[in-house]
Amino acid sequence: MSEEQNNCGMRPWQRKLHDVIFEAETPAGRLFDVLLLIAILASVLAVVLESVESVDERYHTQLRVAEWSFTIVFTIEYVLRLICVQRPWRYARSFFGVVDLLAILPSFLSLLIPGSHELAVIRGLRLLRVFRIFKLARYLGEAEALVEGLKASRAKITVFLTTVLISVTIMGALMHLVEGPENGFVDIPHGIYWAIVTMTTVGFGDLTPMTGPGKFIASVMMVFGYSLIIVPTGIISAEIAVGKSRQNNTEACPHCMKVGHDRKAEYCDRCVGAL
Amino acid sequence: MSEEQNNCGMRPWQRKLHDVIFEAETPAGRLFDVLLLIAILASVLAVVLESVESVDERYHTQLRVAEWSFTIVFTIEYVLRLICVQRPWRYARSFFGVVDLLAILPSFLSLLIPGSHELAVIRGLRLLRVFRIFKLARYLGEAEALVEGLKASRAKITVFLTTVLISVTIMGALMHLVEGPENGFVDIPHGIYWAIVTMTTVGFGDLTPMTGPGKFIASVMMVFGYSLIIVPTGIISAEIAVGKSRQNNTEACPHCMKVGHDRKAEYCDRCVGAL
Amino acid sequence: MSEEQNNCGMRPWQRKLHDVIFEAETPAGRLFDVLLLIAILASVLAVVLESVESVDERYHTQLRVAEWSFTIVFTIEYVLRLICVQRPWRYARSFFGVVDLLAILPSFLSLLIPGSHELAVIRGLRLLRVFRIFKLARYLGEAEALVEGLKASRAKITVFLTTVLISVTIMGALMHLVEGPENGFVDIPHGIYWAIVTMTTVGFGDLTPMTGPGKFIASVMMVFGYSLIIVPTGIISAEIAVGKSRQNNTEACPHCMKVGHDRKAEYCDRCVGAL
Amino acid sequence: MSEEQNNCGMRPWQRKLHDVIFEAETPAGRLFDVLLLIAILASVLAVVLESVESVDERYHTQLRVAEWSFTIVFTIEYVLRLICVQRPWRYARSFFGVVDLLAILPSFLSLLIPGSHELAVIRGLRLLRVFRIFKLARYLGEAEALVEGLKASRAKITVFLTTVLISVTIMGALMHLVEGPENGFVDIPHGIYWAIVTMTTVGFGDLTPMTGPGKFIASVMMVFGYSLIIVPTGIISAEIAVGKSRQNNTEACPHCMKVGHDRKAEYCDRCVGAL
Repeated sequence: MSEEQNNCGMRPWQRKLHDVIFEAETPAGRLFDVLLLIAILASVLAVVLESVESVDERYHTQLRVAEWSFTIVFTIEYVLRLICVQRPWRYARSFFGVVDLLAILPSFLSLLIPGSHELAVIRGLRLLRVFRIFKLARYLGEAEALVEGLKASRAKITVFLTTVLISVTIMGALMHLVEGPENGFVDIPHGIYWAIVTMTTVGFGDLTPMTGPGKFIASVMMVFGYSLIIVPTGIISAEIAVGKSRQNNTEACPHCMKVGHDRKAEYCDRCVGAL
Repeated sequence: MSEEQNNCGMRPWQRKLHDVIFEAETPAGRLFDVLLLIAILASVLAVVLESVESVDERYHTQLRVAEWSFTIVFTIEYVLRLICVQRPWRYARSFFGVVDLLAILPSFLSLLIPGSHELAVIRGLRLLRVFRIFKLARYLGEAEALVEGLKASRAKITVFLTTVLISVTIMGALMHLVEGPENGFVDIPHGIYWAIVTMTTVGFGDLTPMTGPGKFIASVMMVFGYSLIIVPTGIISAEIAVGKSRQNNTEACPHCMKVGHDRKAEYCDRCVGAL
Repeated sequence: MSEEQNNCGMRPWQRKLHDVIFEAETPAGRLFDVLLLIAILASVLAVVLESVESVDERYHTQLRVAEWSFTIVFTIEYVLRLICVQRPWRYARSFFGVVDLLAILPSFLSLLIPGSHELAVIRGLRLLRVFRIFKLARYLGEAEALVEGLKASRAKITVFLTTVLISVTIMGALMHLVEGPENGFVDIPHGIYWAIVTMTTVGFGDLTPMTGPGKFIASVMMVFGYSLIIVPTGIISAEIAVGKSRQNNTEACPHCMKVGHDRKAEYCDRCVGAL
Repeated sequence: MSEEQNNCGMRPWQRKLHDVIFEAETPAGRLFDVLLLIAILASVLAVVLESVESVDERYHTQLRVAEWSFTIVFTIEYVLRLICVQRPWRYARSFFGVVDLLAILPSFLSLLIPGSHELAVIRGLRLLRVFRIFKLARYLGEAEALVEGLKASRAKITVFLTTVLISVTIMGALMHLVEGPENGFVDIPHGIYWAIVTMTTVGFGDLTPMTGPGKFIASVMMVFGYSLIIVPTGIISAEIAVGKSRQNNTEACPHCMKVGHDRKAEYCDRCVGAL
């Protein structure tokens, strides 16, 4: 949306098309967004229903026709988007540009690899864009705030994921050694899979320790692995929350330099100077 | 309770009935609440016990009689509530008005659809109202504070739920594609069910990846899906907690009545009056 | 420990015994605590080992003798504790008094009900008292702080638990209705059990929805039930943490009344007056 | 790295070797780190692949050769590290010194105990050191901050773990008593294993309550056990996060060097000097 603020150098029809496709202020733009929302939901539903055998048996042709119709519509839409933005390449590499492309690729891919059209459910991600119809732009703002918070915690998250990966590899190898192939831990990758299932507390139970020592080691792992995952996650969450609540009001008083005023404050609460 | 502060225009008997049914200050009102509490617990217990075959075989008649007695009592109570409030329609649409109605409907519904009387356990929700007997009104205040906090985080929660729904749909389709019907992932809805079971870390284990690639993708999903659910939940929780602790030190400015000053503030940050 | 600060009115031997049993300052008191720690650990280990068939077959007599020896020792200790405190009844009703009694009861109970001696593992709770040997008194302080925090959140926790109980009852009835006895949901209590297993994200998988509608309802329950449990838990945790960090430094400056000084602060950081 | 700041008393070649092996500032030191990173990843991969039967069958000799090559390289590296640091004993006992030793031991151990070479995956821990190549030193700083936070919460964590251990022992004994060996709870250790699997919400489902009373007790345990683990974890996480955010604004007093002042403090609260 903001990527094309100054449309200088664009032809009038391009500008009009841009307003309809990228903006939601005009009635036409709003109608376009509502239709797009319906089309996305319908196309995802079509893909999901096609996978259900009982439904597919009855309505195979209709579903195929529907899916290809949506694919053609979305392809045209993608081309139009490319045409009416000033810097097509920049749009194509943006998050939504990539999603728009990924939304149409699977159908074409299915001509080569049968079944891959199911990946078209990635169209769902396009819904995030249509939020703006409902004046939910600030919801996207929220999402960006989350992403921002995660970025700020990137260092922590990298250390965290590396530690988790190293831990599950060591745990997987240990369980493979202790339990052995006869108890389902056929190789270290299976052990790693088990360790991840256990550490995330998912605990499918398709692979469980059978021997006494295995159960003992697994118990220790659960208690400590728990801390290994839950504690850092909690810390990161709390930090993002604290960071955001702090970041909301960081305007310094121009008189006494005190920061941390209430967002709606009009006067500094220390030196009484106007903000 | 507060819905009928000014009972002007009500007949004396209506006012009296209202005090008994809606208030808990008078001895009669208190007795009414205690009896209601017992009736609710007994009626839920009756429904639960009726579902247990060994109990039902022995006491079928008694339980049926009990359930219908409670239903009749609650129906009379509902009608009385409608009669003695000033604006019946407003009560009927309020949270507790709807719960009071839902508490009696299932029994009548069971005349048409056998078994549906079990939904009468929804009567349990009525217990929330009876909290006030034990002077637990402030507990309801707590509940309202929670609801308030959740409402304030509505934007975040909408983004969060939409993202979760989109993610599980994509994951479900991917697992259906990789694992296929022969491993239990018979269609995309089953894949979505699996993705939800996994992402919420419930992990029943009734559906698990069998193939190598499936296990690999599932492992990646677990580690990232984990972050997708736990981190935002943690953020929302922390924000509600922080928001509430901030809102707690709400001293109003004696001059302009603005609340929510910094705890250490010496001057109101809106009208510059000394606090 | 603190229950007997002023030992006036006690005979000298009572006072001495009290110092040995209840205090850890004297060498004798310290030795007593160390021996008690070993005895507790050994007695719990004996009970655990006795339950393991292969061990019990070999050492049955020894383990029985050991268990009864510990029971007799702990009984004598309990009687001595009662004798040497000034207000025996107050001790008997205190947390540790009850634990001390529960630690010896199961062995005697097993004379009536075979197998009940296993409950003697409750002796483990006595370990909490022995923390003080390692100068871990402040650890108990931590535990008390936790308990304090939980008490302060009692209102919230009551609302929370009531809501959870009502929710799982409604969910259990709904699943019993939808899935029916043929899929394992034989009655509403089984449905409630399933709902608790699911809502707490334990997810054993011994009972899972089999039908399409059941899986759909379960999916919705998981996503929302998740919020129902995780979000309030997160809020309570965050509040306790925030409350405790605040409670640590709430000494007001005697000069300017500013609160919230650093714990080690010697001077007020606003008016420079000595604290 | 920092352990050898003043290399006085070292021969020139030792100092050079030290710079290459322990530092990442020189081109040689950087190259060494990159090669080490690749070697670690490759050696872990070799061990993992060797455990996969289909891969091992084909490339058994190559994988064995690779593993022993890496072991020899890492052994030489370890010896060089010992030679070129000033205080070898101090290095050997440091965290990374122990990891470096553990990384080579399993291969030699496998000559005595077949299969134990799999423990060589512990080499993965060495990756934590190589972070510095990517100028990720501050990531290690993050890790240290986490460790610091955990250390500060040591008292809480000890109380927490002891309580958890006592709780699962009592729960395990109770379930063994109620369910009995015929339902899989063959002895108390199995009960403890079940209690840990349940309390951490992993819930494998390999061991589940079968009887009515067992299911009832398990339900109560799940709801309360949940609080027992999640609430303290949340508190510790929140405290670490809060503690860190407080510690972040650490401006030292220019007069007495005291750190950790209130953000809005104008005077040092120890020496009363202006900040």
